[in-house]
Amino acid sequence: MNSFGRIFRVHIFGESHGNGIGITIDGCPPGLPLIEEDFLADLGRRKAGAKGTTPRKEDDLPELVSGCFKGHTTGAPLTVLFRNNNTKSGDYDNLVKTPRPGHSDFVAWKRYAGFNDHRGGGHFSGRLTLGLVAAGVVAKKLINPVAINATLIKAGGREDIEQAVIEALEVGDSLGGLVECKTNNIPLGWGEPFFDPIESVIAHLAFAVPAIKGIEFGSGFSAASMKGSQHNDPILDESGKTATNNAGGITGGLSNGNEMIFKVAVKPTSSISIAQKTFSIESNKLETLEVKGRHDACIALRVPVVIEAITAIALADLKALKTASLPWQ
Amino acid sequence: MNSFGRIFRVHIFGESHGNGIGITIDGCPPGLPLIEEDFLADLGRRKAGAKGTTPRKEDDLPELVSGCFKGHTTGAPLTVLFRNNNTKSGDYDNLVKTPRPGHSDFVAWKRYAGFNDHRGGGHFSGRLTLGLVAAGVVAKKLINPVAINATLIKAGGREDIEQAVIEALEVGDSLGGLVECKTNNIPLGWGEPFFDPIESVIAHLAFAVPAIKGIEFGSGFSAASMKGSQHNDPILDESGKTATNNAGGITGGLSNGNEMIFKVAVKPTSSISIAQKTFSIESNKLETLEVKGRHDACIALRVPVVIEAITAIALADLKALKTASLPWQ
Amino acid sequence: MNSFGRIFRVHIFGESHGNGIGITIDGCPPGLPLIEEDFLADLGRRKAGAKGTTPRKEDDLPELVSGCFKGHTTGAPLTVLFRNNNTKSGDYDNLVKTPRPGHSDFVAWKRYAGFNDHRGGGHFSGRLTLGLVAAGVVAKKLINPVAINATLIKAGGREDIEQAVIEALEVGDSLGGLVECKTNNIPLGWGEPFFDPIESVIAHLAFAVPAIKGIEFGSGFSAASMKGSQHNDPILDESGKTATNNAGGITGGLSNGNEMIFKVAVKPTSSISIAQKTFSIESNKLETLEVKGRHDACIALRVPVVIEAITAIALADLKALKTASLPWQ
Amino acid sequence: MNSFGRIFRVHIFGESHGNGIGITIDGCPPGLPLIEEDFLADLGRRKAGAKGTTPRKEDDLPELVSGCFKGHTTGAPLTVLFRNNNTKSGDYDNLVKTPRPGHSDFVAWKRYAGFNDHRGGGHFSGRLTLGLVAAGVVAKKLINPVAINATLIKAGGREDIEQAVIEALEVGDSLGGLVECKTNNIPLGWGEPFFDPIESVIAHLAFAVPAIKGIEFGSGFSAASMKGSQHNDPILDESGKTATNNAGGITGGLSNGNEMIFKVAVKPTSSISIAQKTFSIESNKLETLEVKGRHDACIALRVPVVIEAITAIALADLKALKTASLPWQ
Repeated sequence: MNSFGRIFRVHIFGESHGNGIGITIDGCPPGLPLIEEDFLADLGRRKAGAKGTTPRKEDDLPELVSGCFKGHTTGAPLTVLFRNNNTKSGDYDNLVKTPRPGHSDFVAWKRYAGFNDHRGGGHFSGRLTLGLVAAGVVAKKLINPVAINATLIKAGGREDIEQAVIEALEVGDSLGGLVECKTNNIPLGWGEPFFDPIESVIAHLAFAVPAIKGIEFGSGFSAASMKGSQHNDPILDESGKTATNNAGGITGGLSNGNEMIFKVAVKPTSSISIAQKTFSIESNKLETLEVKGRHDACIALRVPVVIEAITAIALADLKALKTASLPWQ
Repeated sequence: MNSFGRIFRVHIFGESHGNGIGITIDGCPPGLPLIEEDFLADLGRRKAGAKGTTPRKEDDLPELVSGCFKGHTTGAPLTVLFRNNNTKSGDYDNLVKTPRPGHSDFVAWKRYAGFNDHRGGGHFSGRLTLGLVAAGVVAKKLINPVAINATLIKAGGREDIEQAVIEALEVGDSLGGLVECKTNNIPLGWGEPFFDPIESVIAHLAFAVPAIKGIEFGSGFSAASMKGSQHNDPILDESGKTATNNAGGITGGLSNGNEMIFKVAVKPTSSISIAQKTFSIESNKLETLEVKGRHDACIALRVPVVIEAITAIALADLKALKTASLPWQ
Repeated sequence: MNSFGRIFRVHIFGESHGNGIGITIDGCPPGLPLIEEDFLADLGRRKAGAKGTTPRKEDDLPELVSGCFKGHTTGAPLTVLFRNNNTKSGDYDNLVKTPRPGHSDFVAWKRYAGFNDHRGGGHFSGRLTLGLVAAGVVAKKLINPVAINATLIKAGGREDIEQAVIEALEVGDSLGGLVECKTNNIPLGWGEPFFDPIESVIAHLAFAVPAIKGIEFGSGFSAASMKGSQHNDPILDESGKTATNNAGGITGGLSNGNEMIFKVAVKPTSSISIAQKTFSIESNKLETLEVKGRHDACIALRVPVVIEAITAIALADLKALKTASLPWQ
Repeated sequence: MNSFGRIFRVHIFGESHGNGIGITIDGCPPGLPLIEEDFLADLGRRKAGAKGTTPRKEDDLPELVSGCFKGHTTGAPLTVLFRNNNTKSGDYDNLVKTPRPGHSDFVAWKRYAGFNDHRGGGHFSGRLTLGLVAAGVVAKKLINPVAINATLIKAGGREDIEQAVIEALEVGDSLGGLVECKTNNIPLGWGEPFFDPIESVIAHLAFAVPAIKGIEFGSGFSAASMKGSQHNDPILDESGKTATNNAGGITGGLSNGNEMIFKVAVKPTSSISIAQKTFSIESNKLETLEVKGRHDACIALRVPVVIEAITAIALADLKALKTASLPWQ
């Protein structure tokens, strides 16, 4: 479904080439300073236009439809709306018949019996992450001074990321990437076992971001090759500080007083200029597809701010849940 | 919180050394054949006693407290209860003061202000996965003929798993492991974007399983190093069958008609016989801790059936959601 | 919170004098024919302008922001947006200081620490029922051929409703009303005990409608004075048809094959032209308040279509839940 | 479904003549003093045995299966289990074929395709209110010093309740009743508009209690006959105290600082000794049914403590939600 969270809740809507996309944020307390300009910095980081991202000009100006009054949140639901414009739907018309490999075209057409808005991926489009970024801006304010910092640390397996992207662009190909997210100042004890440890909540949101293929916390997949005597992080003092951080800042599903670290793997953009084979629904046989139009050579370039957003959304909800269940006198 | 799911919902309760642990399963349709014996095979796979697992004798006999009548489900909530016995709480008494590295002892003590049942990890114990396995048995029936098969493919980074475990046991250490889960026969189109793609639902549940540090679908982390021209899976026919399966059977968050594949990383058991340093809450300084009592050298040995269970739980809910939103006429 | 439902879910947002109000409908299956004109009939029934309703001219033109494509629902969330215009916020400015009796002004100011949008009641305004009516239009389509018919059967205790309203208007007073809702063609067996019997779901939504003070099903409050031998409805045949209908069409929380009947009590509009006493937050003493501006003499006149809407919303969700839990094989 | 609440959540399970019934309470903070004896007073008030209630001897001894340790809650889910015994299932065997008027026998048989546990009403039995009462005991502690007091004010329309019941017993008939619930000391501002005003949450739970036919808050149904000038409650001071209390302590869905008052109508017990006509599923025609076995002449006698419990459950959740959304500094 299109909702997430228990107290700090988000509801997402919209399609890539419809009237607009947006998000409703429920459970935000009253009195938080908030104006439309507050969204621009993070939206800018997500914006297209940098080398390796699609040249599509998305104005991405947010409208605060509800929930704000005189520069503060009211306690009522916040709806942030982004109008679509500068869309060229014609680019996508043939995709109904020749579904793009790696995209949702084929499965969506099957699942929704052909009624899905296929233009630009419709409701599956990465454009919906605009809503996540907007909600992330509000969430970041709510969890202050928690500080979240996500960066792209590799593209196509290379650390010289810009050069790697340039080379991929030259041949009409695309690259995957590895994003690392580090979060500091989380108070000890956020997380809601059994079913809502921090990892579960973050991973749930992370896989809602298009193109994410994996997530690992702390030692992650390398833990599978380790011994307990190496992996256990000795606790040093009453703050919970540990000598090593294989746990990635989370023990028993709860923040443990150390830096929270996780990584996500981003697959290469599915849209490439290189010709590909695909099954044509129209001709009922394999055909050659050349994806035209605008696309990113490395969507992972735009992912860090989205990962920060989903981390903030997760933590804002866990903070509220913690507040609601403080120990009895 | 301690619930998961939207229609096929599970509610877990219990502590390792309290009266018992159990799970309530809501949303199971009436008329499904079910008797207590049905649980024994999967419970046996999770059971302690094999080489590298704790010698604690857990009878693990399930009681169907509610929701069954004359060998069939009734449509009312199913509660499966496991009584605890053969527990030696004395083993854990000192852990309040000297929290075990890698365990929840310290964070739970902080979060719950000392009121948590610390014995054997209490509500954080791996023993709660008994409830998951029980719910998995019911879920597997509901999604038949979907077939789920999880196996431990490496322990401590080695494929000669049994030998690796024996060596770890000899030195009182423990090992992590890598579990692979393959699922076949999922109809195309299960999954509920935006926030409930299959990956999100499975990952959410996977990180609720103690000791899981990472999850990846299909190409997973290797996707980060790939090019789009390599990663895209060409669609071959109307069934959605693809030439390669980097997607791991999921596109756009929906099952795509191919085998679903994911892997999870399991950290080494935190309890080891080797002496460790930890901060003592009592003496307010670092002390040497020797964890006594029963423990697994490689908890990953017991994880595959739990991973199958959470996969089945996720799919049973997604199947129900799909049924509830079939295309109009 | 501002969401309701389990599968057919609605999320409401907006304030009376902000940018707009709206509703997002999640869980609507793809392929349902839907265009903006479909909303107009029910919106017209709710509209202001009839005798006894406020002369405020609300255009109430709905925009389908998302979830529709080529005249059909897509399976993605439907957002229906109503822009606010023709609002005279100046009318309400003094109400911050002298809260209107019967309105939320005072409690909202306290609860939201003065940050609430107080203009016209803000998020508490009856204007939000526009969203309910819009969702009701979609829900009515989904449950077709279920037929819902709500009517105002008394105003101020009188059956000559129009005359009663004229008299109240003449003296600047307002009237309460009694609305009866009859629903036919509900298949037997809708409802989700234990916590979601039909009555619970409808009553929950009914009390979200501003001004509702009571709800009763079938015999309702008269049941308290009856004997079992009078009250029991004899079952006549296998369709579940009963000789009498004290149950109001619901037994054990499930639709029983008979007409569903319930009544709601609507309090008199709190805004009246007659001078009233209230506590002034500014002067810290009792003052005389004269509520200016536009208001309804009998808000109950506009309630029937809203009650139909919430009934349809409840039934659309219960229908989906029933579909999702059909008996095994 | 069988869950209710957002933070303070309850999950109910069990059948009248199965192994037992119970409730799991999630979201209870750690550190609340709680032992099994704490449940006995309210369970005793609900108990059978008084004049006009069934002579069935229910021991109703609660077992705290989980969530408590050393006399305090741990923060983990609390499961309270009641074993069934002294059940005479034979009494109910014929009811499959000749469904009792007013009972769920017929609709449950249809809805669950004959798989429901029909004995004693199974999951529809009033016996499940044991779970509600148990959860109410915990909730009352959490909302202290909020004081809830429900009483039966009429039976069969008469205020000489005991005599009315004696007369009904003599002729093998049953009586309905009217229960009033008054709650004091609720802080101003509890309730969660738009969809979770106090009335919605309480009404939702009230209609989950078997036999409830109506609910009204404050002036209730009499409001439908009133004028605004009569109905509006003048606010007297900054505490929100009003001169009258037609609102029943709730304005705009929020507690307003006054006593909260509501009434519920309880239908007469459906089981009566007088012969009744019903449709026989076996013979496919109308037959005469004589309900044997134990039953209450006036189930309303046992309802007040259940109504207190659901009020406490509602308020405990609304208190937690309020705590989680306090105004931003």
